[in-house]
Amino acid sequence: MHTLNETHNPALRSWVASANLASADFTIQNLPFAVFRRKDSAEAFRGGVAIGDQILDLAAVAASSVFSAEAASAVQAGAQDKLNALMALGANAWSALRLALSRALRAGAAEEAQLAACLVPQQDAEYGVPARIGDYTDFYTSVHHATNIGKQFRPDNPLLPNYKWVPIGYHGRASSIGVSGRSFLRPMGQTLPPGATQPSFGPSKRLDIELELGIFVGTGNALGEPVSMAQAEDHVFGMCLLNDWSARDIQAWEYQPLGPFLSKNFATTISPWIVTLEALAPYRVPFLRPEADPQPLPYLDSEANRQQGSLDIQLQVGLQTPKMREAGQGDATICRTSYRHAYWTVAQMVTHHTVNGCNLQPGDLFGSGTLSGPTLDQAGALIELTTGGKNPLQLPNGENRTYLEDGDAIVIRGWCEKAGAARIGFGECRGMVMPARQI
Amino acid sequence: MHTLNETHNPALRSWVASANLASADFTIQNLPFAVFRRKDSAEAFRGGVAIGDQILDLAAVAASSVFSAEAASAVQAGAQDKLNALMALGANAWSALRLALSRALRAGAAEEAQLAACLVPQQDAEYGVPARIGDYTDFYTSVHHATNIGKQFRPDNPLLPNYKWVPIGYHGRASSIGVSGRSFLRPMGQTLPPGATQPSFGPSKRLDIELELGIFVGTGNALGEPVSMAQAEDHVFGMCLLNDWSARDIQAWEYQPLGPFLSKNFATTISPWIVTLEALAPYRVPFLRPEADPQPLPYLDSEANRQQGSLDIQLQVGLQTPKMREAGQGDATICRTSYRHAYWTVAQMVTHHTVNGCNLQPGDLFGSGTLSGPTLDQAGALIELTTGGKNPLQLPNGENRTYLEDGDAIVIRGWCEKAGAARIGFGECRGMVMPARQI
Repeated sequence: MHTLNETHNPALRSWVASANLASADFTIQNLPFAVFRRKDSAEAFRGGVAIGDQILDLAAVAASSVFSAEAASAVQAGAQDKLNALMALGANAWSALRLALSRALRAGAAEEAQLAACLVPQQDAEYGVPARIGDYTDFYTSVHHATNIGKQFRPDNPLLPNYKWVPIGYHGRASSIGVSGRSFLRPMGQTLPPGATQPSFGPSKRLDIELELGIFVGTGNALGEPVSMAQAEDHVFGMCLLNDWSARDIQAWEYQPLGPFLSKNFATTISPWIVTLEALAPYRVPFLRPEADPQPLPYLDSEANRQQGSLDIQLQVGLQTPKMREAGQGDATICRTSYRHAYWTVAQMVTHHTVNGCNLQPGDLFGSGTLSGPTLDQAGALIELTTGGKNPLQLPNGENRTYLEDGDAIVIRGWCEKAGAARIGFGECRGMVMPARQI
Repeated sequence: MHTLNETHNPALRSWVASANLASADFTIQNLPFAVFRRKDSAEAFRGGVAIGDQILDLAAVAASSVFSAEAASAVQAGAQDKLNALMALGANAWSALRLALSRALRAGAAEEAQLAACLVPQQDAEYGVPARIGDYTDFYTSVHHATNIGKQFRPDNPLLPNYKWVPIGYHGRASSIGVSGRSFLRPMGQTLPPGATQPSFGPSKRLDIELELGIFVGTGNALGEPVSMAQAEDHVFGMCLLNDWSARDIQAWEYQPLGPFLSKNFATTISPWIVTLEALAPYRVPFLRPEADPQPLPYLDSEANRQQGSLDIQLQVGLQTPKMREAGQGDATICRTSYRHAYWTVAQMVTHHTVNGCNLQPGDLFGSGTLSGPTLDQAGALIELTTGGKNPLQLPNGENRTYLEDGDAIVIRGWCEKAGAARIGFGECRGMVMPARQI
């Protein structure tokens, strides 16, 4: 588990002035990773580090020999078109690179001139999916989401008996994961309309969002070798924002007995920037299990996890309708919550996933599951916010919404801030629904 | 859909004599693909084609310029360490290569001397997973399996109302797929023992098999572009044998509401050889849906699928206990069935998987789901064969089994044969259970 070090010092300032703004996501205490290239160019994608409104181009840094030793090896690995090689290097290498970057980007650093030549403005960049994602696993770590949605799918039995014992997860689709900014077509599929005895085929009428965090695996484990709670966080590279678009009408008809499939595998959107677990160290909070609830089984328990297993990441979902866009209005906030409410921690996800010997590989992605908080306005999906479509959301411009309509855009934002620590942000995860393709 | 051509002519004989035996799996009408290298060598893996008891080394063939035009390009693609590049070339290239191989391996072929120098005996080879599997999807296409197992998990509601409308599937784990011959550790996990109110943690006590076929995707489709029934089989490279090892006690406790996870992702074993869909053309049979059952929705229906959508692939499961092994006895057959009993066809799996816009990629793998036939001795899993462990299997040496014990080996075999066509076989898919690792 990462402890605070000089890179977290809130007094640090960067020679990149935009990183020092009070509202900046990409402060010198953050230093998240993405893969990028200049927009509409034929350049190769390569790794980059966000600082203020700039990207430090790791391929340019690698060519400049600014860094030495372990940090230099990490820069070389990070200069590739995907971050898997950097992820595979392990926690010591990531820390060495973070420290070197922090020192070289600080106001007054001797490296300023050399590194300034390696900056690309974020407004000129486009992003790729940051890793070759071998396997994508989606968890279900919000007890509030599980309860809210359980009430609608299984009114008599909302929270199943396994929930408080098992960090429930399932495998998702890696091929359809895309990066923020991508639009996708409303999915077609089979649904059983209310009262019907036979299914219909057509565009989903209950297209929803799921507010999640993504967790990128760094170093993997060999098949048959579980990762203990003590080791779990060393295997995690960092976190991003994630929207697990979901067709609720397709889901309701298909999900038994083997779980969601076509209702969720048509598109998953992630933010381009991966905030490292080390950057998040100041925002750790105790993992609190209500006393009346079962405590985790020993393999999922550790003193460190109880003391500071959770993370206080603020999350917000915005919805922009086509009318808002035409009127020049930004998105309207429809949900605010925090990751601190999750019922299972990142370490518990890693340990549970591997306890049967399952092997993780560098670049594998976990979704946290929908991160609904304890109250309904903290819910991370429209099916909860509108109680299954019964109570439409009232938007500030007089429109309302139950599920998503064509042209709707969703923007997830995430950040951490508190007194005594520097703000760090995830940027945004944006996606737009296009009309279904008729087939 | 592939039609019969000169490569299927049962009268063809090869200059590789072992391919002409009546019992041969790898006849000249078969020509399946694998990746291999010499056992315990530091050689690179490369593609190979089985012929009798030999492997035609595609890297050696590529270096020899025996073939020209499209077949030569296909050989080059097949010479790599994974078959993804060959798979991506598409059905015309696979057919051109098959025709060239068939002609060059026939008795009397002018290419005999050159190709004889490219043979490696199968007994000297070891195999790799034949493709980089981006995503692995497991279907549930046997209505008999769904009914048998449904009775045990949901006695009141064995076959769910969606089964006869939706080709049910879910995403599985790609990282833990291994090739025949690999052993794996019995998984640890959470289970809820009968009568208990709290779960226990320990080695699975109900470790099972699932007799399946694997289907390798050849050419992919772009995100948002569904594959119609008319196009579906052009996207399929071929089929293999697959054992979806399953921990039933872990599955029963974890599977609601999102489906199986740790109960199945610790190991999946496939046969090294991929039999192409073109090789299987003589064994097509009508896809028969009982008249009382709903007919497939239009997007899952086609005349060609009704006429010859199913495949008559004979399947057999053998169990070898440690005592049998010590006594020098082979495996005892515990199940015989055919893929012709499946409720959904390969084409329906492809079309359903993509109807929502989900993108497939070359090398993706589908599992058919457990291929139980209509009678209980045709069931492809121990949970069915033993009625949930209540009726142990009696083995020929006097032992009995409910679920797998440590040291048990399972061998799946598959082949096609009938009057008027050449026999073609899949070889075998073998795996062994090792004792759990205590953690």
